[in-house]
Amino acid sequence: MLAHDATAPTVFGKRRNRYFIGSMTVTITGELFIGGTRVRGTGGTLQARNASTGDILPGEFSAASISELELAVKHADEAFYAFREIDLQRRAHLLDAIAENILELGDELVTRCMAETGLPQGRIEGERGRTVAQLRMFADVVRQKSFLNVRVETAQPDRKPSPRPDLRLRNVPLGPVAVFGASNFPLAFSVAGGDTASALAAGCPVIVKAHSAHLGTSELVGQAVQKAITELGLPLGLFALLSGSGQVVGEALVAHEKVRAVGFTGSRRGGTALMKIAAAKRQPSPVFAEMSSINPVLLFPRALETNGEAIGGAFANALTLGCGQFCTNPGLVIAIEGAALERFIASAAASIEQFPPTPMLTSSILESYREGGEALASQKGVTRVTASCSVEAGRASAHLFRTTAKSFLANPALHAEVFGPTSLIVAAMDWSEVETVIASLEGQLTVALHIEGEDQELAAKMLPQLECLAGRILVNGFGTGVEVGAAMVHGGPYPATSDGRSTSVGSLAIERFLRPVCYQDLPAALLPPELR
Amino acid sequence: MLAHDATAPTVFGKRRNRYFIGSMTVTITGELFIGGTRVRGTGGTLQARNASTGDILPGEFSAASISELELAVKHADEAFYAFREIDLQRRAHLLDAIAENILELGDELVTRCMAETGLPQGRIEGERGRTVAQLRMFADVVRQKSFLNVRVETAQPDRKPSPRPDLRLRNVPLGPVAVFGASNFPLAFSVAGGDTASALAAGCPVIVKAHSAHLGTSELVGQAVQKAITELGLPLGLFALLSGSGQVVGEALVAHEKVRAVGFTGSRRGGTALMKIAAAKRQPSPVFAEMSSINPVLLFPRALETNGEAIGGAFANALTLGCGQFCTNPGLVIAIEGAALERFIASAAASIEQFPPTPMLTSSILESYREGGEALASQKGVTRVTASCSVEAGRASAHLFRTTAKSFLANPALHAEVFGPTSLIVAAMDWSEVETVIASLEGQLTVALHIEGEDQELAAKMLPQLECLAGRILVNGFGTGVEVGAAMVHGGPYPATSDGRSTSVGSLAIERFLRPVCYQDLPAALLPPELR
Repeated sequence: MLAHDATAPTVFGKRRNRYFIGSMTVTITGELFIGGTRVRGTGGTLQARNASTGDILPGEFSAASISELELAVKHADEAFYAFREIDLQRRAHLLDAIAENILELGDELVTRCMAETGLPQGRIEGERGRTVAQLRMFADVVRQKSFLNVRVETAQPDRKPSPRPDLRLRNVPLGPVAVFGASNFPLAFSVAGGDTASALAAGCPVIVKAHSAHLGTSELVGQAVQKAITELGLPLGLFALLSGSGQVVGEALVAHEKVRAVGFTGSRRGGTALMKIAAAKRQPSPVFAEMSSINPVLLFPRALETNGEAIGGAFANALTLGCGQFCTNPGLVIAIEGAALERFIASAAASIEQFPPTPMLTSSILESYREGGEALASQKGVTRVTASCSVEAGRASAHLFRTTAKSFLANPALHAEVFGPTSLIVAAMDWSEVETVIASLEGQLTVALHIEGEDQELAAKMLPQLECLAGRILVNGFGTGVEVGAAMVHGGPYPATSDGRSTSVGSLAIERFLRPVCYQDLPAALLPPELR
Repeated sequence: MLAHDATAPTVFGKRRNRYFIGSMTVTITGELFIGGTRVRGTGGTLQARNASTGDILPGEFSAASISELELAVKHADEAFYAFREIDLQRRAHLLDAIAENILELGDELVTRCMAETGLPQGRIEGERGRTVAQLRMFADVVRQKSFLNVRVETAQPDRKPSPRPDLRLRNVPLGPVAVFGASNFPLAFSVAGGDTASALAAGCPVIVKAHSAHLGTSELVGQAVQKAITELGLPLGLFALLSGSGQVVGEALVAHEKVRAVGFTGSRRGGTALMKIAAAKRQPSPVFAEMSSINPVLLFPRALETNGEAIGGAFANALTLGCGQFCTNPGLVIAIEGAALERFIASAAASIEQFPPTPMLTSSILESYREGGEALASQKGVTRVTASCSVEAGRASAHLFRTTAKSFLANPALHAEVFGPTSLIVAAMDWSEVETVIASLEGQLTVALHIEGEDQELAAKMLPQLECLAGRILVNGFGTGVEVGAAMVHGGPYPATSDGRSTSVGSLAIERFLRPVCYQDLPAALLPPELR
């Protein structure tokens, strides 16, 4: 059932008959994908582990050396020019074909992904559906062509005082894009996730730095991508998949002068490091990093009074969903102190304590979660609402802490994200203090308002401030469950993202990888087809 | 005829009947504009000089201290929230009213601007027309509302497996914007120029750092802006005008945490310094700097052969227009060596030698021009085509240098911009060497192709490479004379600009100052009017 020889490099285009993704078992070889070829990386070896048990999973993974990285970028740069000339229908086909090939990986992908991430089957299958839907959405975006932003102003030779030239504008792709697989979305924000789909849709080749926590998943999806490129006869350098450490392979990729943009979802430390590297290049390149957000939840007085217990239960569900490993996890709740808030807290705590200890995505995420919880617990003015340990026997428990607005305002440490199922409740003396807390926050992906009746008036007054705070404002819900569509913004002011003018989810994400070019007085034959 | 007392601060809103801009003489006081008030800066004094004679011009200009800068930003931040709530019709009125008030400044503005810049009357009047047209274009952009990028996806409560929420998106303004007056466009890229117009159109208050070379012009235009704000009853902090050095006032402005974006046209050194400052902020902010471009001109073989002399004459005109002080000045010509190129050179040189020595915008620009010319002349493999001095008796002469592709490729110093009427001709052995020269270039604002007949085929092959090189590609013309419209791109890869995904000229410039926000499940009453 082995589709190819694990010891020799395999050229997809030449040996495609040896590939069978559909119902066949696809074997994980641990090789890199470079320019349509599978090669064994010479930058060392890596192991994949079962996130729940810590056991080593099958696959001898190889890390890319700098020379392999150079080769991948060289192929991507060559493919960039070739890909630009290929019509948009074929570009759309590519995205659809990748989606199809991911589905054809079938259970093997789901099983491997579950093992590598500790996430349950339903979540992985749901995420696969989302990944496929994202690819198809971008195929539609490509077919609709509005991303090209075509603008035509024809010549006015008789205009006074001077004639107007013929001016036509369209968007063009930036060039090769480095995509970093995210730990928490092994499919939807990894090898063929939102960043890859939007970059390919824009016309940019993609070089993926595989996340070390799901190497096998990455390789399987890599095969789906490569197969689509090969079968459609597209430039083989369009896609590369490199494994290795973020500090070595990741940073070298971002630093490469021919890498023209970066898509990253991960830690604030990682994202800001990449921003610095990209800014220091001979030709600085944009970094679209989605990094850090505590996603404040505002409980307005009337909603808290009439509905606090129900909101508490819903909040606990949102907090523990996926073991709290979402960028939009509600890490902060702000409300006025009093009996109604206590009822909310009691209700939330009761639900949260029911949450069974659960494996996290990686042992280092679990360790950071433990440290984050302990750090929070040790801060002045912070008390625990729920039981005493964040981590027991290699699994994460959910936790709730509380503090006062005064303590929160005095201590920046309380503003930091604890990635996982932990949240901090901030009790203010009055609404004006709630507003002061809001004003003290850094940029966020989401802000959620719970309102009822007359709360609406208070909420209306705050909207301008909230628009400056976050990329998405939502009412009577929580930020988890990010819809993929034309009106979504998954972005927000720094440090939520590196560039608050962008989104990494939804069709608008394609704009990150485009720039406008104006064509003046070009003869029709020289104009790009869509400008003629 | 003095409209106000030069010694006491004047509050526009309170004493508006003392202002008469139309046919009245408006006196230059040297005060700053902060929050609707005129105040004398306490950061030192500045003088305005006649660019042609070096004589001191009337006006005792005051520089802003850091406390005055703080005050201006505080007012701008307050005005930001108020301005957002004001409907788009009034925002459009503001832009139209500024245009009207600039025209009403009449001859005094033209006379002062001519004195401060050394530019001739026709140029200043033309630039005034362009400035007014720009403001009116952005008024139209505001009225048309498409800059809001409204996207609505209504709820689908019955969708399986999960309901779709109601999602609505619009663009919102970033916040206070710092605008740097450009030396070479004292009206069109200064106090009420393209950056200011697009920022106000986006909904952002503007704090202008006046260019020290046209302080009186800046103050006059500042009065036109402030009068419009006052008369329309708009938030007085919407506009501030600060004088002072770039290193002190300019850098402090960019470093201010409440300044959310920067519009800058100037030197590469200045622009990259601002990029670094903005990137190091607690919340980094985008800098849109238009910096450095040599705007290569490619003479294709057939065009050169059949039309070289005429192109040479047209090139000389473009090079010397405005004494070469345009960002799109043709500073580099690339062609295959031979008799046809010699005819082009002879024709260009004959025209260029007719160009009379002309004052430049400032004495420091003149000095840089002299140094740049001398540096170029001293490089290995570079020879002068025209006479021997760039600068004589305080005026600039136009110059042409030549070199070989080999020398050009070997020496990065030959790639640097010499701001002024100087250009370098690079003679290649064959077309493949022309392409190598192109590949060696940094990002550009424009690239101009001169083609005829069969050249078109060769040009078509090069287009993908040229699209990666520049923001505007033009045929059988030169980049000078930047049309203001919907299809213009005045931008390009670094170092042409800090962000090649943007343009500073044309209606698309508004996008620099916007970011998207998504509203999820908001009751209609809470939604912004355009999303209901």
